[in-house]
Amino acid sequence: MKPDNSTTLARAALSRLFEPSDSVGLGLVAMVGPVDALRIARRDLSADTTLGCSLREFLGIADGPRDPLQDGLTRWAPRLADLSPERDLATLRRLGGRLVTPETDEWPEALDDLQGAAPVCLWVRGTQSVPPLSRVAAVVGSRDSTAYGDSVTAELSSGLTERGYRVISGGAYGIDARAHRAALVSADGQGPSTIAVLAGGIDRYYPAGNEELLRSIAHSGLLISEVPPGGSPTRWRFLQRNRLIAALSAVTVVVEARWRSGALNTAHHAAGLGRPVGAVPGSVHSANSAGCHRLLRDGSAVCVTDAADVVELAGPLGGEPLGDRARAEAAPTRDQDGLTVPDLLVLDGLPVRSTTTVDKLSSVAGLSVREVISGLSRLELAGLACRTGEGWRRQRR
Amino acid sequence: MKPDNSTTLARAALSRLFEPSDSVGLGLVAMVGPVDALRIARRDLSADTTLGCSLREFLGIADGPRDPLQDGLTRWAPRLADLSPERDLATLRRLGGRLVTPETDEWPEALDDLQGAAPVCLWVRGTQSVPPLSRVAAVVGSRDSTAYGDSVTAELSSGLTERGYRVISGGAYGIDARAHRAALVSADGQGPSTIAVLAGGIDRYYPAGNEELLRSIAHSGLLISEVPPGGSPTRWRFLQRNRLIAALSAVTVVVEARWRSGALNTAHHAAGLGRPVGAVPGSVHSANSAGCHRLLRDGSAVCVTDAADVVELAGPLGGEPLGDRARAEAAPTRDQDGLTVPDLLVLDGLPVRSTTTVDKLSSVAGLSVREVISGLSRLELAGLACRTGEGWRRQRR
Repeated sequence: MKPDNSTTLARAALSRLFEPSDSVGLGLVAMVGPVDALRIARRDLSADTTLGCSLREFLGIADGPRDPLQDGLTRWAPRLADLSPERDLATLRRLGGRLVTPETDEWPEALDDLQGAAPVCLWVRGTQSVPPLSRVAAVVGSRDSTAYGDSVTAELSSGLTERGYRVISGGAYGIDARAHRAALVSADGQGPSTIAVLAGGIDRYYPAGNEELLRSIAHSGLLISEVPPGGSPTRWRFLQRNRLIAALSAVTVVVEARWRSGALNTAHHAAGLGRPVGAVPGSVHSANSAGCHRLLRDGSAVCVTDAADVVELAGPLGGEPLGDRARAEAAPTRDQDGLTVPDLLVLDGLPVRSTTTVDKLSSVAGLSVREVISGLSRLELAGLACRTGEGWRRQRR
Repeated sequence: MKPDNSTTLARAALSRLFEPSDSVGLGLVAMVGPVDALRIARRDLSADTTLGCSLREFLGIADGPRDPLQDGLTRWAPRLADLSPERDLATLRRLGGRLVTPETDEWPEALDDLQGAAPVCLWVRGTQSVPPLSRVAAVVGSRDSTAYGDSVTAELSSGLTERGYRVISGGAYGIDARAHRAALVSADGQGPSTIAVLAGGIDRYYPAGNEELLRSIAHSGLLISEVPPGGSPTRWRFLQRNRLIAALSAVTVVVEARWRSGALNTAHHAAGLGRPVGAVPGSVHSANSAGCHRLLRDGSAVCVTDAADVVELAGPLGGEPLGDRARAEAAPTRDQDGLTVPDLLVLDGLPVRSTTTVDKLSSVAGLSVREVISGLSRLELAGLACRTGEGWRRQRR
């Protein structure tokens, strides 16, 4: 489906006019469409009282003392002079990017789960398509990561990439950067290597120290933002950016986070969307794991220790679960595994270095002679007991 | 309440006759009392068919092909010759101990939560009383602990002891021993310093390397067992001993446990009794934390990182919760804490090293001039913005 030009232009313009998650602006778009919403914002089309009332109802604030639409118009007015969606789209094309809107085939349906807070459009840079939700896993965490966090992040990100997941993160220092780097290295060339969702424009390499990394992602992966080229990465936009990471992912994993950390914000967005959240445990002495332990403690996140755990957490959409079962199979079996209680009692009573008799075993194990005899035969079959000239002894399997 | 001598003697004898959690034996005691149960086991009193039927009903196996009472009688028979409760009680007195039975005031009501698996009696060594459930916390874990597990155990055990909890554990190497030792050092002389529940008799220092430790516990704390003096610590008794630790504690914490570990058994007993279970997180690279992560992952345990977390988990019985709240108060506040979204947008737009105007802020922040002005006044009051001759700038709090 090819969107018509006026819709694309209107969404591009609105993404500069509205801050992310501007509920009034987004409500207006939902009610009258992007083209008329822009005309109303520009005062080319007058918003009648009926529309104002409907919008208040739409936003669930019918009885508020203020008129949200008038407030919105006043809020948007100072930015009207700067609007030039043609220029922004030309910049985007120069960067090898495209505008992804609800009218395009590439629009990730997963974003619709954000409902009233879905972005008006995505500014996307890179040649690959945005993958479906079921193939995307978010790996996020603090900027000031530890060596432990770095190594776990690299393992998770490589493991997820090898399992066909595309790793999405925020392009920041620390955990985010590690996640992207490991994904770049492990990428198999199918789909984007990794996806960075930025708080500022996709032409702004922020933070500056990650410029090389972000350029690599633009080359083999995807850079995504809901603010137009040139947009500054403000704190508000960072917080809102996190909701996009959560919404685009089948599962969100926090590797390291302090007690207060932006990564927890991403986790809460994911939980709010009903998406599974994983947290990596760490030392209780590490302040960088305190936020993860907080998530585990309050039940917002499930404990994950490797990529298989994350895939399992992602659920049926994410392919074959590999967690507990695979590990249980890998764990060494022990002599007593699968024994009944009486047989276990007999086994307990069998000496390793000497021998014993059925009568003694009966007394030691607290079982009848009959139970001891039948238990011994089962243990003998299992290779755990052996009969000698002097009596019974234990055998190591 | 002073139990009569025959009941005490009968329970002492039955604890040698029955293995721990012998459901038939315990059911018989529940139905006819300990004195007659012993007479029936000794065949001094014949068990009529009615009793057999009632017992089957009591055990919920009315339709089974076997007669559990006959099976029990056969099972107990080999041990009858060794019964000498007077001798066992004399040994107990020599050790400075006493028999705690449901007929004594000291019987911990918490054990009744085990229902059909409650022990027939406790062999208790030490001068202090068994504390009430609400003041007991179990700290358990693997025998092959790491330096990390050791240090966390010591912190938890000291912290719990300082908060008025008595730490209970299994007297084993590793985490158990660390928990007991830290409690011994931190003890305030009120009540037992620490409590070890043993799988063998309270006169058997097992494992041998912990003899000094167990002697110290016998001196200032409590050694408890449900098997009589001289009893061997068999694997079955270890597993059953764990249910006593869980039942006697308001909360059970697993500090370190491998993927398969006896400590998980204690945790499952606690969970089965509806008692809260905590697990200490650790490195995902440590096999010694894999069992803890397993408990966290399957929802059997809550993540605990310090003694305050454990106390909070113990719930209302356990005094004042000190977890999240205290920590949130201790965490540093940040400039943006408590700001409304518009004020946060204004704050984001304020430069630190230069100044800006209300009009520019209005465009940068995407807010109306009125919102910017009122936001600036609030930020100024909060000490976050300051007005200069050239315009507005940000101020660090």
